[in-house]
Amino acid sequence: MNRRSFLQGAAAAPAMAALAHPAATSAQELRAVTLSKPQTHGGRPLLQALSQRRTIRTIGEEKLSQQQLSNLLWAAFGVNREDGRRTAPSAMNVKDMGLYVFLAEGVYLYDADAHALKPVVAGDHRAKTGKQSAVAKAAVCLVYVADLDKYSSGRGRAITDQSLLMAWSNAHAGFIGQNVYLYAASEDLAAWFRASLDSAALTTLLNLRPAQRVLYTQTVGVPTKSA
Amino acid sequence: MNRRSFLQGAAAAPAMAALAHPAATSAQELRAVTLSKPQTHGGRPLLQALSQRRTIRTIGEEKLSQQQLSNLLWAAFGVNREDGRRTAPSAMNVKDMGLYVFLAEGVYLYDADAHALKPVVAGDHRAKTGKQSAVAKAAVCLVYVADLDKYSSGRGRAITDQSLLMAWSNAHAGFIGQNVYLYAASEDLAAWFRASLDSAALTTLLNLRPAQRVLYTQTVGVPTKSA
Repeated sequence: MNRRSFLQGAAAAPAMAALAHPAATSAQELRAVTLSKPQTHGGRPLLQALSQRRTIRTIGEEKLSQQQLSNLLWAAFGVNREDGRRTAPSAMNVKDMGLYVFLAEGVYLYDADAHALKPVVAGDHRAKTGKQSAVAKAAVCLVYVADLDKYSSGRGRAITDQSLLMAWSNAHAGFIGQNVYLYAASEDLAAWFRASLDSAALTTLLNLRPAQRVLYTQTVGVPTKSA
Repeated sequence: MNRRSFLQGAAAAPAMAALAHPAATSAQELRAVTLSKPQTHGGRPLLQALSQRRTIRTIGEEKLSQQQLSNLLWAAFGVNREDGRRTAPSAMNVKDMGLYVFLAEGVYLYDADAHALKPVVAGDHRAKTGKQSAVAKAAVCLVYVADLDKYSSGRGRAITDQSLLMAWSNAHAGFIGQNVYLYAASEDLAAWFRASLDSAALTTLLNLRPAQRVLYTQTVGVPTKSA
Protein backbone atom coordinates (compact mmCIF):
# COMPACT_ATOMS: atom_id res chain seq x y z
CA MET A 1 0.00 0.00 0.00
CA ASN A 2 1.35 3.40 -0.90
CA ARG A 3 1.14 6.43 1.28
CA ARG A 4 -1.74 7.96 -0.66
CA SER A 5 -4.00 4.97 -0.23
CA PHE A 6 -3.08 4.89 3.44
CA LEU A 7 -4.27 8.46 3.83
CA GLN A 8 -7.35 7.95 1.69
CA GLY A 9 -8.25 4.90 3.64
CA ALA A 10 -8.20 7.08 6.66
CA ALA A 11 -10.04 9.99 5.16
CA ALA A 12 -13.19 9.58 7.24
CA ALA A 13 -15.09 12.36 8.81
CA PRO A 14 -13.93 14.31 11.81
CA ALA A 15 -17.55 15.42 12.19
CA MET A 16 -18.57 11.89 13.06
CA ALA A 17 -16.58 12.04 16.25
CA ALA A 18 -19.22 14.16 17.91
CA LEU A 19 -21.87 11.46 17.64
CA ALA A 20 -23.05 9.60 20.69
CA HIS A 21 -21.67 6.18 19.74
CA PRO A 22 -18.61 6.95 17.74
CA ALA A 23 -17.07 3.49 17.87
CA ALA A 24 -20.20 1.85 16.53
CA THR A 25 -20.72 4.20 13.63
CA SER A 26 -17.50 5.93 12.65
CA ALA A 27 -15.39 2.81 12.44
CA GLN A 28 -17.32 1.95 9.33
CA GLU A 29 -15.92 5.00 7.62
CA LEU A 30 -12.38 4.21 8.58
CA ARG A 31 -10.79 1.46 6.55
CA ALA A 32 -8.55 -1.26 7.82
CA VAL A 33 -4.90 -0.69 7.04
CA THR A 34 -2.52 -3.45 6.07
CA LEU A 35 0.86 -2.42 7.42
CA SER A 36 4.05 -2.79 5.42
CA LYS A 37 6.03 -5.90 6.18
CA PRO A 38 8.07 -5.06 9.28
CA GLN A 39 11.84 -5.03 9.10
CA THR A 40 13.16 -7.69 11.42
CA HIS A 41 16.79 -6.92 10.82
CA GLY A 42 18.65 -3.67 11.24
CA GLY A 43 18.35 -0.80 13.67
CA ARG A 44 21.05 0.44 15.99
CA PRO A 45 23.11 -2.06 17.95
CA LEU A 46 21.17 -2.93 21.10
CA LEU A 47 23.62 -1.49 23.61
CA GLN A 48 23.70 1.78 21.73
CA ALA A 49 19.90 1.90 21.65
CA LEU A 50 19.89 1.30 25.41
CA SER A 51 22.42 4.08 25.95
CA GLN A 52 20.18 6.46 24.00
CA ARG A 53 16.89 5.34 25.62
CA ARG A 54 15.13 8.28 27.25
CA THR A 55 11.81 10.06 27.49
CA ILE A 56 11.45 12.97 25.08
CA ARG A 57 8.46 15.24 25.66
CA THR A 58 9.15 17.86 23.00
CA ILE A 59 7.51 16.25 20.01
CA GLY A 60 6.69 17.92 16.71
CA GLU A 61 3.89 17.29 14.23
CA GLU A 62 5.85 15.39 11.59
CA LYS A 63 4.46 11.96 10.69
CA LEU A 64 6.36 8.71 10.76
CA SER A 65 7.01 6.93 7.50
CA GLN A 66 4.81 3.92 6.75
CA GLN A 67 7.78 1.66 7.38
CA GLN A 68 8.49 3.31 10.73
CA LEU A 69 4.87 2.88 11.84
CA SER A 70 4.97 -0.74 10.78
CA ASN A 71 8.28 -1.38 12.52
CA LEU A 72 7.17 0.50 15.65
CA LEU A 73 4.09 -1.68 16.14
CA TRP A 74 5.90 -4.87 15.31
CA ALA A 75 8.71 -3.95 17.72
CA ALA A 76 6.14 -3.12 20.38
CA PHE A 77 4.13 -6.34 20.36
CA GLY A 78 4.40 -7.98 16.97
CA VAL A 79 4.55 -11.66 16.15
CA ASN A 80 8.15 -12.86 16.10
CA ARG A 81 7.61 -16.64 15.89
CA GLU A 82 5.60 -19.03 13.78
CA ASP A 83 3.45 -20.04 16.74
CA GLY A 84 2.19 -16.47 17.04
CA ARG A 85 4.26 -15.52 20.05
CA ARG A 86 5.35 -11.95 20.40
CA THR A 87 8.26 -9.58 20.84
CA ALA A 88 7.07 -9.01 24.43
CA PRO A 89 6.06 -11.75 26.86
CA SER A 90 2.80 -12.24 28.70
CA ALA A 91 1.94 -14.49 31.62
CA MET A 92 0.62 -17.82 30.34
CA ASN A 93 0.83 -16.31 26.84
CA VAL A 94 -2.51 -14.56 27.41
CA LYS A 95 -1.66 -11.60 25.15
CA ASP A 96 -4.03 -9.47 27.19
CA MET A 97 -2.75 -6.13 25.98
CA GLY A 98 -4.58 -4.25 23.26
CA LEU A 99 -2.62 -1.47 21.58
CA TYR A 100 -4.91 1.28 20.33
CA VAL A 101 -3.20 3.43 17.78
CA PHE A 102 -4.31 7.07 17.61
CA LEU A 103 -3.39 8.71 14.30
CA ALA A 104 -4.56 11.99 12.78
CA GLU A 105 -7.18 10.18 10.72
CA GLY A 106 -8.61 7.91 13.37
CA VAL A 107 -8.13 5.32 16.05
CA TYR A 108 -7.17 1.75 15.20
CA LEU A 109 -6.49 -1.44 17.12
CA TYR A 110 -3.21 -3.14 16.27
CA ASP A 111 -3.87 -6.67 15.00
CA ALA A 112 -0.54 -8.37 15.53
CA ASP A 113 -1.48 -11.64 13.82
CA ALA A 114 -2.40 -9.86 10.57
CA HIS A 115 0.10 -7.03 11.21
CA ALA A 116 -2.70 -4.61 10.36
CA LEU A 117 -4.70 -1.79 11.86
CA LYS A 118 -8.36 -2.50 12.56
CA PRO A 119 -10.55 0.60 12.48
CA VAL A 120 -12.10 1.63 15.80
CA VAL A 121 -13.26 5.23 15.42
CA ALA A 122 -12.67 7.84 12.75
CA GLY A 123 -11.41 11.32 13.43
CA ASP A 124 -8.49 12.91 15.23
CA HIS A 125 -8.71 11.91 18.87
CA ARG A 126 -5.06 12.27 19.76
CA ALA A 127 -5.77 15.13 22.16
CA LYS A 128 -7.77 12.70 24.29
CA THR A 129 -4.60 10.81 25.18
CA GLY A 130 -3.18 13.65 27.26
CA LYS A 131 -3.55 17.32 28.15
CA GLN A 132 -0.04 18.25 27.07
CA SER A 133 -0.09 20.31 23.89
CA ALA A 134 2.54 18.23 22.08
CA VAL A 135 0.41 15.10 22.44
CA ALA A 136 -2.49 16.35 20.32
CA LYS A 137 -0.40 16.60 17.15
CA ALA A 138 2.30 14.00 17.64
CA ALA A 139 2.49 11.35 14.93
CA VAL A 140 1.26 8.40 17.00
CA CYS A 141 -0.35 7.99 20.39
CA LEU A 142 -0.57 4.45 21.67
CA VAL A 143 -3.11 3.58 24.35
CA TYR A 144 -2.52 0.41 26.36
CA VAL A 145 -5.72 -1.46 27.22
CA ALA A 146 -5.58 -4.68 29.23
CA ASP A 147 -8.38 -7.17 28.65
CA LEU A 148 -8.77 -9.11 31.88
CA ASP A 149 -11.14 -11.54 30.16
CA LYS A 150 -8.12 -12.91 28.28
CA TYR A 151 -6.93 -14.52 31.51
CA SER A 152 -10.08 -16.60 31.85
CA SER A 153 -9.00 -19.38 29.54
CA GLY A 154 -6.44 -22.13 30.03
CA ARG A 155 -4.39 -21.97 33.22
CA GLY A 156 -5.53 -18.43 33.84
CA ARG A 157 -9.01 -19.63 34.70
CA ALA A 158 -7.87 -20.63 38.18
CA ILE A 159 -6.74 -17.12 39.06
CA THR A 160 -9.51 -15.03 40.53
CA ASP A 161 -7.43 -12.41 42.30
CA GLN A 162 -8.03 -9.41 40.10
CA SER A 163 -5.29 -7.34 41.72
CA LEU A 164 -2.84 -10.04 40.69
CA LEU A 165 -4.08 -9.95 37.10
CA MET A 166 -3.81 -6.17 37.09
CA ALA A 167 -0.26 -6.42 38.39
CA TRP A 168 0.65 -8.74 35.54
CA SER A 169 -1.05 -6.56 32.96
CA ASN A 170 0.94 -3.60 34.21
CA ALA A 171 4.14 -5.56 33.79
CA HIS A 172 3.02 -6.53 30.28
CA ALA A 173 2.54 -2.85 29.44
CA GLY A 174 6.07 -2.24 30.67
CA PHE A 175 7.56 -4.92 28.42
CA ILE A 176 5.85 -3.42 25.39
CA GLY A 177 6.55 0.17 26.38
CA GLN A 178 10.25 -0.55 26.62
CA ASN A 179 10.24 -2.03 23.12
CA VAL A 180 8.70 1.21 21.91
CA TYR A 181 11.28 3.29 23.77
CA LEU A 182 14.13 1.30 22.26
CA TYR A 183 12.75 1.44 18.74
CA ALA A 184 12.36 5.21 19.16
CA ALA A 185 15.94 5.47 20.39
CA SER A 186 17.13 3.44 17.43
CA GLU A 187 15.30 5.73 14.97
CA ASP A 188 15.96 9.09 16.67
CA LEU A 189 12.26 9.37 17.44
CA ALA A 190 10.71 10.75 20.61
CA ALA A 191 8.74 8.50 22.98
CA TRP A 192 6.87 9.40 26.13
CA PHE A 193 5.09 6.81 28.30
CA ARG A 194 2.49 8.23 30.69
CA ALA A 195 0.13 7.03 33.37
CA SER A 196 -1.85 10.27 33.49
CA LEU A 197 -4.87 9.91 31.27
CA ASP A 198 -8.65 10.25 31.32
CA SER A 199 -9.56 6.61 31.40
CA ALA A 200 -13.31 7.29 31.55
CA ALA A 201 -13.21 9.35 28.35
CA LEU A 202 -11.06 6.78 26.59
CA THR A 203 -13.26 3.91 27.76
CA THR A 204 -16.25 5.67 26.19
CA LEU A 205 -14.44 6.61 23.00
CA LEU A 206 -13.10 3.10 22.45
CA ASN A 207 -16.38 1.49 23.50
CA LEU A 208 -14.62 -0.83 25.95
CA ARG A 209 -16.10 -3.65 28.00
CA PRO A 210 -15.83 -3.54 31.82
CA ALA A 211 -13.00 -6.09 31.73
CA GLN A 212 -10.96 -3.83 29.46
CA ARG A 213 -8.83 -1.41 31.48
CA VAL A 214 -7.06 1.62 30.09
CA LEU A 215 -3.62 1.59 31.70
CA TYR A 216 -1.16 3.85 29.94
CA THR A 217 -0.49 5.92 26.89
CA GLN A 218 2.74 6.39 24.97
CA THR A 219 3.24 9.15 22.47
CA VAL A 220 5.72 8.64 19.65
CA GLY A 221 6.81 11.16 17.08
CA VAL A 222 9.60 13.23 15.68
CA PRO A 223 11.40 15.30 18.32
CA THR A 224 11.52 19.05 17.84
CA LYS A 225 14.99 20.46 17.33
CA SER A 226 15.26 21.62 20.91
CA ALA A 227 14.90 18.05 22.21
CA MET B 1 2.30 -19.59 38.19
CA ASN B 2 2.28 -21.22 41.58
CA ARG B 3 -0.50 -19.20 43.07
CA ARG B 4 -0.35 -20.90 46.41
CA SER B 5 3.22 -19.86 47.12
CA PHE B 6 2.54 -16.37 45.81
CA LEU B 7 -0.41 -15.86 48.14
CA GLN B 8 1.22 -17.51 51.12
CA GLY B 9 4.17 -15.27 50.57
CA ALA B 10 2.06 -12.16 50.71
CA ALA B 11 0.37 -13.24 53.91
CA ALA B 12 3.36 -14.54 55.82
CA ALA B 13 5.93 -11.90 55.04
CA PRO B 14 5.54 -9.42 57.88
CA ALA B 15 5.76 -12.04 60.62
CA MET B 16 8.75 -13.82 59.14
CA ALA B 17 10.74 -10.70 58.42
CA ALA B 18 10.93 -9.81 62.08
CA LEU B 19 12.64 -13.05 63.12
CA ALA B 20 16.08 -13.19 61.66
CA HIS B 21 18.55 -10.67 60.31
CA PRO B 22 20.57 -12.72 57.87
CA ALA B 23 21.66 -9.74 55.83
CA ALA B 24 23.28 -8.09 58.83
CA THR B 25 25.57 -11.02 59.49
CA SER B 26 26.18 -12.90 56.27
CA ALA B 27 26.79 -9.85 54.14
CA GLN B 28 30.01 -9.28 56.03
CA GLU B 29 31.40 -12.45 54.52
CA LEU B 30 30.63 -11.31 51.02
CA ARG B 31 32.65 -8.52 49.44
CA ALA B 32 31.33 -5.74 47.28
CA VAL B 33 32.05 -6.24 43.59
CA THR B 34 32.98 -3.45 41.24
CA LEU B 35 31.63 -4.44 37.87
CA SER B 36 33.58 -4.02 34.67
CA LYS B 37 32.78 -0.90 32.72
CA PRO B 38 29.66 -1.75 30.70
CA GLN B 39 29.80 -1.75 26.94
CA THR B 40 27.45 0.91 25.66
CA HIS B 41 28.03 0.15 22.01
CA GLY B 42 27.63 -3.08 20.13
CA GLY B 43 25.22 -5.95 20.43
CA ARG B 44 22.89 -7.22 17.74
CA PRO B 45 20.88 -4.71 15.72
CA LEU B 46 17.75 -3.88 17.70
CA LEU B 47 15.22 -5.33 15.25
CA GLN B 48 17.13 -8.58 15.13
CA ALA B 49 17.25 -8.74 18.93
CA LEU B 50 13.48 -8.17 18.97
CA SER B 51 12.95 -10.93 16.44
CA GLN B 52 14.94 -13.32 18.64
CA ARG B 53 13.33 -12.26 21.94
CA ARG B 54 11.75 -15.21 23.70
CA THR B 55 11.56 -17.02 27.01
CA ILE B 56 14.00 -19.91 27.33
CA ARG B 57 13.48 -22.21 30.32
CA THR B 58 16.16 -24.81 29.58
CA ILE B 59 19.14 -23.18 31.21
CA GLY B 60 22.48 -24.79 31.97
CA GLU B 61 24.99 -24.18 34.74
CA GLU B 62 27.57 -22.24 32.78
CA LYS B 63 28.44 -18.81 34.17
CA LEU B 64 28.33 -15.54 32.31
CA SER B 65 31.56 -13.73 31.65
CA GLN B 66 32.30 -10.73 33.87
CA GLN B 67 31.64 -8.46 30.93
CA GLN B 68 28.30 -10.13 30.23
CA LEU B 69 27.21 -9.74 33.86
CA SER B 70 28.24 -6.10 33.77
CA ASN B 71 26.46 -5.47 30.49
CA LEU B 72 23.37 -7.37 31.62
CA LEU B 73 22.88 -5.24 34.72
CA TRP B 74 23.66 -2.01 32.92
CA ALA B 75 21.24 -2.94 30.13
CA ALA B 76 18.61 -3.82 32.72
CA PHE B 77 18.61 -0.64 34.76
CA GLY B 78 21.99 1.04 34.47
CA VAL B 79 22.78 4.74 34.35
CA ASN B 80 22.78 5.98 30.76
CA ARG B 81 22.95 9.74 31.33
CA GLU B 82 25.06 12.15 33.33
CA ASP B 83 22.12 13.10 35.52
CA GLY B 84 21.86 9.51 36.77
CA ARG B 85 18.84 8.56 34.70
CA ARG B 86 18.50 4.98 33.59
CA THR B 87 18.05 2.65 30.65
CA ALA B 88 14.49 2.02 31.89
CA PRO B 89 12.05 4.73 32.94
CA SER B 90 10.24 5.17 36.22
CA ALA B 91 7.31 7.38 37.13
CA MET B 92 8.57 10.72 38.45
CA ASN B 93 12.07 9.25 38.21
CA VAL B 94 11.56 7.47 41.55
CA LYS B 95 13.84 4.54 40.66
CA ASP B 96 11.84 2.37 43.02
CA MET B 97 13.05 -0.95 41.69
CA GLY B 98 15.83 -2.81 43.47
CA LEU B 99 17.50 -5.55 41.49
CA TYR B 100 18.80 -8.30 43.74
CA VAL B 101 21.38 -10.41 41.98
CA PHE B 102 21.59 -14.05 43.06
CA LEU B 103 24.91 -15.64 42.10
CA ALA B 104 26.51 -18.88 43.22
CA GLU B 105 28.56 -17.05 45.85
CA GLY B 106 25.86 -14.89 47.32
CA VAL B 107 23.14 -12.32 46.88
CA TYR B 108 23.94 -8.73 45.95
CA LEU B 109 22.00 -5.56 45.31
CA TYR B 110 22.80 -3.83 42.03
CA ASP B 111 24.04 -0.30 42.71
CA ALA B 112 23.48 1.42 39.40
CA ASP B 113 25.15 4.70 40.36
CA ALA B 114 28.41 2.95 41.23
CA HIS B 115 27.79 0.13 38.71
CA ALA B 116 28.70 -2.28 41.48
CA LEU B 117 27.25 -5.15 43.47
CA LYS B 118 26.57 -4.47 47.13
CA PRO B 119 26.70 -7.58 49.31
CA VAL B 120 23.40 -8.65 50.88
CA VAL B 121 23.84 -12.24 52.03
CA ALA B 122 26.55 -14.83 51.42
CA GLY B 123 25.91 -18.31 50.11
CA ASP B 124 24.11 -19.89 47.20
CA HIS B 125 20.44 -18.94 47.47
CA ARG B 126 19.52 -19.28 43.81
CA ALA B 127 17.16 -22.17 44.53
CA LYS B 128 15.02 -19.77 46.57
CA THR B 129 14.07 -17.88 43.41
CA GLY B 130 12.01 -20.75 42.02
CA LYS B 131 11.17 -24.43 42.36
CA GLN B 132 12.20 -25.30 38.81
CA SER B 133 15.40 -27.32 38.81
CA ALA B 134 17.16 -25.20 36.18
CA VAL B 135 16.80 -22.10 38.34
CA ALA B 136 18.96 -23.35 41.20
CA LYS B 137 22.11 -23.55 39.09
CA ALA B 138 21.55 -20.94 36.40
CA ALA B 139 24.22 -18.25 36.21
CA VAL B 140 22.14 -15.33 37.48
CA CYS B 141 18.77 -14.98 39.13
CA LEU B 142 17.45 -11.45 39.39
CA VAL B 143 14.79 -10.64 41.96
CA TYR B 144 12.75 -7.49 41.42
CA VAL B 145 11.90 -5.65 44.63
CA ALA B 146 9.85 -2.45 44.54
CA ASP B 147 10.43 0.02 47.36
CA LEU B 148 7.18 1.92 47.79
CA ASP B 149 8.89 4.37 50.17
CA LYS B 150 10.72 5.77 47.15
CA TYR B 151 7.49 7.36 45.99
CA SER B 152 7.16 9.41 49.15
CA SER B 153 9.42 12.23 48.06
CA GLY B 154 8.88 14.97 45.49
CA ARG B 155 5.68 14.80 43.49
CA GLY B 156 5.11 11.24 44.62
CA ARG B 157 4.27 12.42 48.11
CA ALA B 158 0.78 13.41 46.99
CA ILE B 159 -0.06 9.88 45.83
CA THR B 160 -1.51 7.79 48.60
CA ASP B 161 -3.27 5.16 46.51
CA GLN B 162 -1.05 2.16 47.12
CA SER B 163 -2.67 0.09 44.38
CA LEU B 164 -1.65 2.80 41.92
CA LEU B 165 1.92 2.75 43.16
CA MET B 166 1.97 -1.03 42.86
CA ALA B 167 0.64 -0.78 39.31
CA TRP B 168 3.46 1.57 38.40
CA SER B 169 6.07 -0.60 40.07
CA ASN B 170 4.83 -3.55 38.07
CA ALA B 171 5.20 -1.56 34.86
CA HIS B 172 8.71 -0.56 35.96
CA ALA B 173 9.59 -4.21 36.41
CA GLY B 174 8.32 -4.82 32.88
CA PHE B 175 10.53 -2.11 31.38
CA ILE B 176 13.59 -3.58 33.06
CA GLY B 177 12.62 -7.17 32.34
CA GLN B 178 12.34 -6.43 28.64
CA ASN B 179 15.82 -4.91 28.63
CA VAL B 180 17.08 -8.15 30.14
CA TYR B 181 15.23 -10.23 27.56
CA LEU B 182 16.68 -8.20 24.72
CA TYR B 183 20.22 -8.32 26.07
CA ALA B 184 19.84 -12.08 26.43
CA ALA B 185 18.58 -12.33 22.84
CA SER B 186 21.51 -10.27 21.64
CA GLU B 187 24.01 -12.54 23.43
CA ASP B 188 22.34 -15.91 22.77
CA LEU B 189 21.59 -16.23 26.47
CA ALA B 190 18.45 -17.66 28.04
CA ALA B 191 16.09 -15.45 30.05
CA TRP B 192 12.96 -16.40 31.95
CA PHE B 193 10.78 -13.85 33.78
CA ARG B 194 8.42 -15.31 36.41
CA ALA B 195 5.76 -14.21 38.84
CA SER B 196 5.79 -17.47 40.77
CA LEU B 197 8.03 -17.08 43.77
CA ASP B 198 8.01 -17.49 47.53
CA SER B 199 7.89 -13.87 48.52
CA ALA B 200 7.86 -14.66 52.26
CA ALA B 201 11.11 -16.60 52.04
CA LEU B 202 12.72 -13.93 49.89
CA THR B 203 11.51 -11.11 52.15
CA THR B 204 13.16 -12.86 55.09
CA LEU B 205 16.35 -13.70 53.23
CA LEU B 206 16.79 -10.18 51.92
CA ASN B 207 15.72 -8.61 55.22
CA LEU B 208 13.24 -6.32 53.50
CA ARG B 209 11.18 -3.54 55.04
CA PRO B 210 7.36 -3.72 54.79
CA ALA B 211 7.39 -1.14 51.99
CA GLN B 212 9.67 -3.36 49.93
CA ARG B 213 7.67 -5.77 47.79
CA VAL B 214 9.07 -8.78 45.99
CA LEU B 215 7.43 -8.73 42.56
CA TYR B 216 9.18 -10.96 40.06
CA THR B 217 12.24 -12.99 39.35
CA GLN B 218 14.14 -13.39 36.10
CA THR B 219 16.66 -16.13 35.55
CA VAL B 220 19.46 -15.58 33.04
CA GLY B 221 22.03 -18.07 31.91
CA VAL B 222 23.43 -20.10 29.09
CA PRO B 223 20.80 -22.20 27.29
CA THR B 224 21.30 -25.91 27.14
CA LYS B 225 21.79 -27.31 23.67
CA SER B 226 18.20 -28.49 23.45
CA ALA B 227 16.87 -24.94 23.84
